[in-house]
Amino acid sequence: MKVAKFGGSSVASSEQIKKVGSVIGDDPDRKFVVVSAPGKRFSGDTKITDLLIELDELAEDNKDTQHKVTEIMKRFSEIVEELQVSKTVLDSIENTIHSTLNSDWTGQMKTDALKSIGEDSSAKIVSEYLKTQGLNAEYVNPQDAGIIVSNEPGNAQVLPESYEKLYTMRQKDSISVIPGFFGYAKSGQLITFPRGGSDITGSIVAAGVQADLYENFTDVDSVYVVDPRVIENPEEVTKLTYKEMRELSYSGFGVFHDEALMPAFQAEIPVCIKNTNNPSSSGTMIVSEKDPDTRCVVGIAADTGFSNLYVSKYLMNREIGFGRRLLQILEEEGISFEHAPSGIDNMSVIIRDNQLTAEKELNVINRIKSELNPETISIDYGFAMIMVVGEGMMNAVGIAEKSTAAFAEANISIEMINQGSSEVSVMFGIRKDKLDLAIKSLYNKFFE
Amino acid sequence: MKVAKFGGSSVASSEQIKKVGSVIGDDPDRKFVVVSAPGKRFSGDTKITDLLIELDELAEDNKDTQHKVTEIMKRFSEIVEELQVSKTVLDSIENTIHSTLNSDWTGQMKTDALKSIGEDSSAKIVSEYLKTQGLNAEYVNPQDAGIIVSNEPGNAQVLPESYEKLYTMRQKDSISVIPGFFGYAKSGQLITFPRGGSDITGSIVAAGVQADLYENFTDVDSVYVVDPRVIENPEEVTKLTYKEMRELSYSGFGVFHDEALMPAFQAEIPVCIKNTNNPSSSGTMIVSEKDPDTRCVVGIAADTGFSNLYVSKYLMNREIGFGRRLLQILEEEGISFEHAPSGIDNMSVIIRDNQLTAEKELNVINRIKSELNPETISIDYGFAMIMVVGEGMMNAVGIAEKSTAAFAEANISIEMINQGSSEVSVMFGIRKDKLDLAIKSLYNKFFE
Repeated sequence: MKVAKFGGSSVASSEQIKKVGSVIGDDPDRKFVVVSAPGKRFSGDTKITDLLIELDELAEDNKDTQHKVTEIMKRFSEIVEELQVSKTVLDSIENTIHSTLNSDWTGQMKTDALKSIGEDSSAKIVSEYLKTQGLNAEYVNPQDAGIIVSNEPGNAQVLPESYEKLYTMRQKDSISVIPGFFGYAKSGQLITFPRGGSDITGSIVAAGVQADLYENFTDVDSVYVVDPRVIENPEEVTKLTYKEMRELSYSGFGVFHDEALMPAFQAEIPVCIKNTNNPSSSGTMIVSEKDPDTRCVVGIAADTGFSNLYVSKYLMNREIGFGRRLLQILEEEGISFEHAPSGIDNMSVIIRDNQLTAEKELNVINRIKSELNPETISIDYGFAMIMVVGEGMMNAVGIAEKSTAAFAEANISIEMINQGSSEVSVMFGIRKDKLDLAIKSLYNKFFE
Repeated sequence: MKVAKFGGSSVASSEQIKKVGSVIGDDPDRKFVVVSAPGKRFSGDTKITDLLIELDELAEDNKDTQHKVTEIMKRFSEIVEELQVSKTVLDSIENTIHSTLNSDWTGQMKTDALKSIGEDSSAKIVSEYLKTQGLNAEYVNPQDAGIIVSNEPGNAQVLPESYEKLYTMRQKDSISVIPGFFGYAKSGQLITFPRGGSDITGSIVAAGVQADLYENFTDVDSVYVVDPRVIENPEEVTKLTYKEMRELSYSGFGVFHDEALMPAFQAEIPVCIKNTNNPSSSGTMIVSEKDPDTRCVVGIAADTGFSNLYVSKYLMNREIGFGRRLLQILEEEGISFEHAPSGIDNMSVIIRDNQLTAEKELNVINRIKSELNPETISIDYGFAMIMVVGEGMMNAVGIAEKSTAAFAEANISIEMINQGSSEVSVMFGIRKDKLDLAIKSLYNKFFE
């Protein structure tokens, strides 16, 4: 029994949905299908979800919504017509849009309900199309599937009771087509997951039905050892562990939203990343345990947008609580930190830039000055973080050497090294303008 | 104008004190002399300060103290007789011992007063001896010198008002011989500095009198780039910066107590480490600014006795305040941390073992379990930390590579790397049984 999740590009057009149909038809084990909202058909196109967000904003501002509804329906109509499925599905979609617009929900509740229509419609269309292909498919609403979530609009967390209900879905003969991205609170209110939500739904369903495999169909053949925008035709990763995937995703790898794997991870369901456009390619398997035959380092991930808050004070190490108080000031200002390397008389805190407004920064600096009385305080923008990822690297001799040699050969000075907590990765901080150079040098070192 | 401080081995015997006399006589700029208590004369000998601590313990327990007083006085008598100085100094020392024993001070106050007698007596003897050598020397009590400290027994901090008084000492024609290790609270109570206290006194006097040079006489020709117990005849350091010295001292370098330099550092007084037994050797200069001609890495320091508290929890990075709360639990249990490297789902806290009792450890673990609900928690003993020290290393390409290559060549896996906050050092954590091997490999890499 397999759960197959199809991303936005896989359901962006009738042509793509036909590929989905043939993938489903090819393997009778694919009993659960989870779909995203239709994505971009071409560069410059707009995703359905973004149109729905625009619709929500118009409604919020009490502006005319009809032209936006028309624009959205036009996309769905095209798909439905080209797939030659029953047009009743279009009525159903349009009814959902209008009833949501006219509901007495407000604010984030309404936003969630409108945003979810992309996935919901996609599931309705795909199930209808599968029927035309002679498959016993049916649309299953997440509430009927049993996806019960916390009441956190836009940031739903699955509740444990979901899994029992989902497990009963194993009994069904038909192929269940479930929209991704949302579930229902106990109150019955529709709530969306955070970004990457369809992956989360797929992962929850796979865990719930105890699938043998969770297939995640995207538009790439596999995960690559490094960002293909930086290295042309990089090596493919055939197998990696959950932990490796999580570390890679965290640092801007982008194939998966990094938390999407949690339910599958906890249920020990293997995951396969595959390509809707090239389903015969074997893809990338994500498993629990490292295969001892595979090499130690599986990938290099990187991200920009970090700042370094640096504080120094002579005899800092004699002041019990200094580090804790520094982190508490940040916490009270609503800023989370990534890493906090410390010296004897100094401490750095690596923060994601997007958490800092000019006002917050000023608050933080003033509070640190007055509460901690440091000698030096500075915020340095323009950091990039690079992660070299591989389970077992902690016990492997020479990984740190190989990595640092790559930086040295590219003549890049390393501003920060963070190794010691994660058993799966070592992290380097450098100036962001050197990032591509560093990635290339690391790639040459580990994969060429 | 120079301040010359002589350590315990320099005043351990009449023979050594004669060397001190000739050092003082050689240079009329040496107007301020700070002395430690007589140290060990030979391996297995007992330091005077340790005898005084034993005396304090006897007194505390209301046991007979006379035999210990006799033992202490015997040491002083030998020195005084061999130096052929006036025996009135012995009466003065014995009077001090008895009046302290019979004082109504209790607890730590009495302990401080008794412990200080080693340095105090040493200063009395040295000043008398200098007089016999035709030098215009006089014993100056720290209170008369103006060394005013916080009221923290055994852990005195100098108060800023000391410096004004000390500065007036410049006017004196005579050579002032000042006992190290203690000062006086505003109340007039004698209070000792933390360990390494004579170095602190020397440093305070140098800052106060605005000395041109603070000479710290020990029993080694210089600071070495690495512990001479690990590497035979290692290279000497001719010059290093305050910051470098501080980082080296912190990690078990041991020539200096790491905080002893602060007053001299803040007053920008250059420091010279010299050898009483070989005063013509140029020693090691400690200065404010790095000499651009000297090499980047100046030394390798190391210390054992660290533990790694490891905590992991899936989605830890989404919990704002997790790291802060972990540090707060440690703080509330009175445990300070050295470093706290963190991964995405995990955090390590490096702690000095000597802070952990079985009971504290249990408390900490139980609190973390109940308050933070982690998936994994463990404490791993047996860590050693190695520091590669050198100002400017942050901007130098290849230091990290050279260091990590040294570990790889010695086949040692690196458990932790901490780089990024200190501009002066990079720190490596390894298993302690590999420490000597690691130091040797690093020494070969950077200094051979």
